[in-house]
Parts: sequence; structure tokens; C-alpha cells
Amino acid sequence: MEPAVPQPQTFDRVLSSMCTRPHPAARAAAERFLATNPGDPETYRSVAGLEQDVVDRLGEVTGLDSPHGYVASGGTEANIQAMRAARNRTEAADPNVVAPESVHFSFQKAAEVLGVDLRITPVDTDRRADPDAMADVVDADTALIVGIAGTTEYGRVDPIPALADLAADADALLHVDAAWGGFALPFTDHEWNFSHAAVDTMTIDPHKLGQAAVPAGGFLAREGATMDALAVETPYLESTSQATLTGTRSGAGVASAAAALDELWPAGYRQAYERAQANAEWVAAALTDRGFDVIDPVLPLVAVDLPEPLFDALTERGWRLARTARGELRIVCMPHVTREMLTAFVRDLDDCRSAVDGT
Amino acid sequence: MEPAVPQPQTFDRVLSSMCTRPHPAARAAAERFLATNPGDPETYRSVAGLEQDVVDRLGEVTGLDSPHGYVASGGTEANIQAMRAARNRTEAADPNVVAPESVHFSFQKAAEVLGVDLRITPVDTDRRADPDAMADVVDADTALIVGIAGTTEYGRVDPIPALADLAADADALLHVDAAWGGFALPFTDHEWNFSHAAVDTMTIDPHKLGQAAVPAGGFLAREGATMDALAVETPYLESTSQATLTGTRSGAGVASAAAALDELWPAGYRQAYERAQANAEWVAAALTDRGFDVIDPVLPLVAVDLPEPLFDALTERGWRLARTARGELRIVCMPHVTREMLTAFVRDLDDCRSAVDGT
Repeated sequence: MEPAVPQPQTFDRVLSSMCTRPHPAARAAAERFLATNPGDPETYRSVAGLEQDVVDRLGEVTGLDSPHGYVASGGTEANIQAMRAARNRTEAADPNVVAPESVHFSFQKAAEVLGVDLRITPVDTDRRADPDAMADVVDADTALIVGIAGTTEYGRVDPIPALADLAADADALLHVDAAWGGFALPFTDHEWNFSHAAVDTMTIDPHKLGQAAVPAGGFLAREGATMDALAVETPYLESTSQATLTGTRSGAGVASAAAALDELWPAGYRQAYERAQANAEWVAAALTDRGFDVIDPVLPLVAVDLPEPLFDALTERGWRLARTARGELRIVCMPHVTREMLTAFVRDLDDCRSAVDGT
Repeated sequence: MEPAVPQPQTFDRVLSSMCTRPHPAARAAAERFLATNPGDPETYRSVAGLEQDVVDRLGEVTGLDSPHGYVASGGTEANIQAMRAARNRTEAADPNVVAPESVHFSFQKAAEVLGVDLRITPVDTDRRADPDAMADVVDADTALIVGIAGTTEYGRVDPIPALADLAADADALLHVDAAWGGFALPFTDHEWNFSHAAVDTMTIDPHKLGQAAVPAGGFLAREGATMDALAVETPYLESTSQATLTGTRSGAGVASAAAALDELWPAGYRQAYERAQANAEWVAAALTDRGFDVIDPVLPLVAVDLPEPLFDALTERGWRLARTARGELRIVCMPHVTREMLTAFVRDLDDCRSAVDGT
């Protein structure tokens, strides 16, 4: 008997991921470009052209004319690169980075990798960065201020214009991590992008709400000098320098991002955002009705205080769930999360609650 | 009219890449797993299991029982991680890394990113690492010695056992970069792997001679302590720590590597190596016959001194060619490089030479 061909799981019960099922056009493009390497752009020219298209489109999404940047492996790489560029551009001998506690853990990784002092500050009562708390720890060695537009845990949007003022006062750069939120925020009233404030660099991942296939992260920079600060020479490639963190990269990811942006920007993304936001508000209301303590979804992400036995019982029923550092359940309303899935989830929650309460 | 769907170029005239057309089984697996993220192993469990299979198989390829490691985005990430682990494990306050000049440029990038002093030493007359030259710059702060098993420019294999002795004397770790050579070397007499010497970490990329789809690099470690030195906490994921450099990763790459190893190790890789080596020797002989100065292919990679006008003329005919830092043409005999391609290349070379000489 032939061994079974390994199969990926479906997304049917995944409420925990910030990635999603790629759009059909994105999947088809990824399949066509599986064997290409944008890390070697002179050899693989067609994918290099697509990468420039993606960067240009991401500029449109984020309010930046003449954007610099590239398609990264994901948000972690883009965040590391933002911190690396700031470290390399500052004149401070012992540079530090100031970020709110809501920052993604990739900043801890970046600080450890790069040997930079990461100063974490408390958030405000709505879980957003507090500019005053950040100002307290900024000093002459601060190379970078970090704001988040759509936090990983609670989907909060930091006050980016206030953080830009802080960065300007400190002569530091400002990085906005919109890895997850970047494809929802254009359809909201938030001030988060390059056109709203003096943002220097940004992370925005096509493979999250952008519906591209993994790996397709996005790193954007307002100035070419940021890319220059990242470049190393590449003696063996046909091209002569490389500003990315990785070397060989996924042509599938690039082509997939290009196809998704082509297909979905802006109308498709607006529609996906409105549907996701409505789903988040629906499940938030359903959970509130049941007496749970729900943190309202500013973006399509609901956090809810759920007792441990309930969490475990739902996991046993096959739900893929994740928690915040404080232990709340996070429901990420990605495009693959339908109203039917959420209805089934709430039904299972009711069932499990009866069982847990009954024992 | 619909705009044309972007198409990748074919591999018909690519002699410059260390990547190749994926094996059909590898491509099929990549397509099945396009939407998965091994960076979140608890959510994406089926791909996490496949990743362990890949690491175990890579242990077989490299002579390591109970291997530690993971599927990286590529050789650059794996080399950065080797240097990072060494930096984090050493007690030296100002650690240095000693490597031969034949080292891949990713080590320059790693040193810059990690703030480590990279000491580059001359190679011997056969372009291999010179242990004596390396010993001259090793000191108490040396955290890592680097050897290459299949250099990027000339396909040379460094004397790994001698480098292991050097590392032991210096109380440093030993990293072997077999990113490209690792799937050819098992079928040669070279001493290069974990079973031949006290190698601590290794880079071996399934997406190069392993015939997996990009991105599927390999990072291997003999000791769990190396992985511990790389781990950061991951508060929002279902899993609790992450030792990779990137966050979200490509399930397609992992599944593709698993399928390629399943299909090709060891007989298929042996066959591919023998065919590639025969092709390399054939084209080396053809070039020598024509009076060119050829550097013999120890592994399936031929370097040849080619006048600039000839290089340009061949490029104009659509050949994708790359050069060494010294300017020699490199012909990388990857699995997609057939005897027919090489015959056509040599014919074009003859044509171009007549044209160039005739003007």
C-alpha cells in the first residue's frame, strides 16, 4: 500500500491565525512562480518586476508616493529590518528603541539579534501606546520609536501622529507595524500611515489580511537612505547588492502578493474588511450576551475572558485557539472565518459551558 | 482585452542559479501546503510534523543522529543563526568569527546584523580554507570557526576535520556551510559532515541541490543548547517559544522539502549528483579544449576565465550567467542544466567568439 500523501489541515476551525486561505488568484500566481528566486533579481527578472509592482501598490495602500522597500518573508523580518536600519543610521553608540508593551514579540527578537536596548512602556487604558509614557524613556540615544497599527493581541491602533511628534523631538525614526492591520485600516478613520504622519518605515504583510500566500511580508521605507543602510555587497549574484535580511526568497510569495493586490485593491479589500468587521462585532455581541467580558473589536479581532476549562474543552473539539499574554481568548476574524464558523463556535461554546458547569 | 498573466521565465538558459526546478513531487507538495505556516506549529500541526521529518532526514544526509534544527528560509538565515547561536553561547564580551575568504556573503551580512567581528583569512592554492592561516587570527574571543563544504564560487570543500581540531583548541564552535554542496557530498569521498568531525552546526538547503521548492533552507545543530540559545518567547501563539529568525514561515517549503527527501534520498540524489558531475566535467573539458583557463569542478560547478565581451555577448543571447568576485564565469550544473543546454551554450560560445574575434 502506498503511504498516505500528507495533507494540510483545512481552515474550518482556525480562529487563532493571522494568516488565511490565499485568494484564488493569489494561489494560482504562487503556483506559477514556485521555482523563482527574487533574491537573485537579475537571474529571475520577471519576478523582480512583480516585486516592484507590489512595493508600488503597497505605497498606494499606505499613502506613500515613490515607496522604497521589498517583499519580506513576513512581519518579523520587516520589523527586524526597521530596527536594523535605525541602528545603522543613528550616531548613538549604544542605541535604544522605544516601544509600547503591546508590541509584537518580533521586536524582542530583533533587539536580541541586533544588540539594541528595547525600552518597553505601559499602554493606556484602551491598550494603546501612551506617548507620555514613551517620552519618559526617550533620550539622546533613542534611534527608533515604534507604533502599532493593529496590535496582535487586541487589534488596537496607536496614536501615530503623536508618536511622530515624539520621534521628531527626539531626532529618532518612526516605524509603524501594520503587519496585520494594514489591509483593513484604509477603510477606517484611523490616522496610521505615511500620509497621516512622518512615518519612516512600515511593516504591512500581504500574507495576512492581504490574502496572499505565505511568505509575503512587506517592508516599506520613505527614504532610499533606509535601504542603503541595509545593503550588503553580493559578489556572486548578477545584481550587486542586497538589502534584504534573507538571501534566496520566495518568488511564489511575491507573485502571489502581486496577484492579490491586483485583484483586491481597493474594492475587494474593503469588502473583506467590512465583512470581517461585521463578523467580529457579531461574535463580540454574542459573547457579551452570554455574560463574558469582551474587549470590543476596533479592528476585526475579538478578545474575551474565557475560563481555562472552557478553552480546553473547545480545543478538544478541534478549534484552533490562541490566547493573549493575559490569557484572554483571541478570535482573529480573517477572511476564512465565516459567520457560519462563528455560529458553530458559539454553539460549541454553549455546549461546552453546559458540560463544564454540569460536572 | 485582459492583461497578460505574468509568467515566470523558464530555466532553459539559467546557468547562474544555485536554485533549480523543483522535483515534481516537491512541487505538488508545495502546492498542497501553500496556505500553512510552520511558524505557528500548534495551529498548523500537519506541517509541524513534516518539518520534524525533514530535520530527521537531513540528519541522515549529514551523519547526525537525533538532529536539532528547522527548515529556514534559506542558507542566509541558517548562516545568520549559526553565528547568532555562537555569539549567544560564548562568554567572550567582544566575540569574533573566523572564516576563509571563500565564505558566502551572508556571513558578512550576519556579522553586520549581529555586531560580531568577522575575521577573513586567505585560502590555499586550491581555494580551500587554510587552517594555519585561520589559526593565526583565532584568539580567546573566537566564538565560531566556519568551514564551507562546497563553496559558492568554486565548489571547493574545506578541510573540515582540521577545522574541527582548530575549533576544539580554541574552545569555539564549528559551523559548516553545506548550503549548496550538502546533497552532492554524501556521494563523494570528502570528509564534511557531523560524523566525520566535531561539527556543531550546519547549513544544508533542500531548495538548492535538494530539489525542493523555494523557500526551504536547512539549519542543523548537534546540541539542543544551540536551539535554546536562539529561542525567544512567543506570547500570542499556541506554541510558547520560537528559535527561528523569521516568524511566519512557508508551509509550502517545508512540505516540498519533505516530499523531495522522501522521493530522492538517497538513490535519486546520487543519480542527480552523478549526472551533474558528469555534465560539469564535460563542459570543463569542452572549455579547456577551446583554450580557456578552467578551474576543475570538484563538485558540479565550473569556473572559467572568459573575456568580458564574450560574457556580454552570451548574456545578450539570453544566457543567465554569474561571475565570481575575480570575474570568472560560473556554470552551476544544477539538475535543470542538461547536456543539451550545455551543448547549446558551448555552440553559442563558439559563435560569439567568432563574432567577437571577427570585429
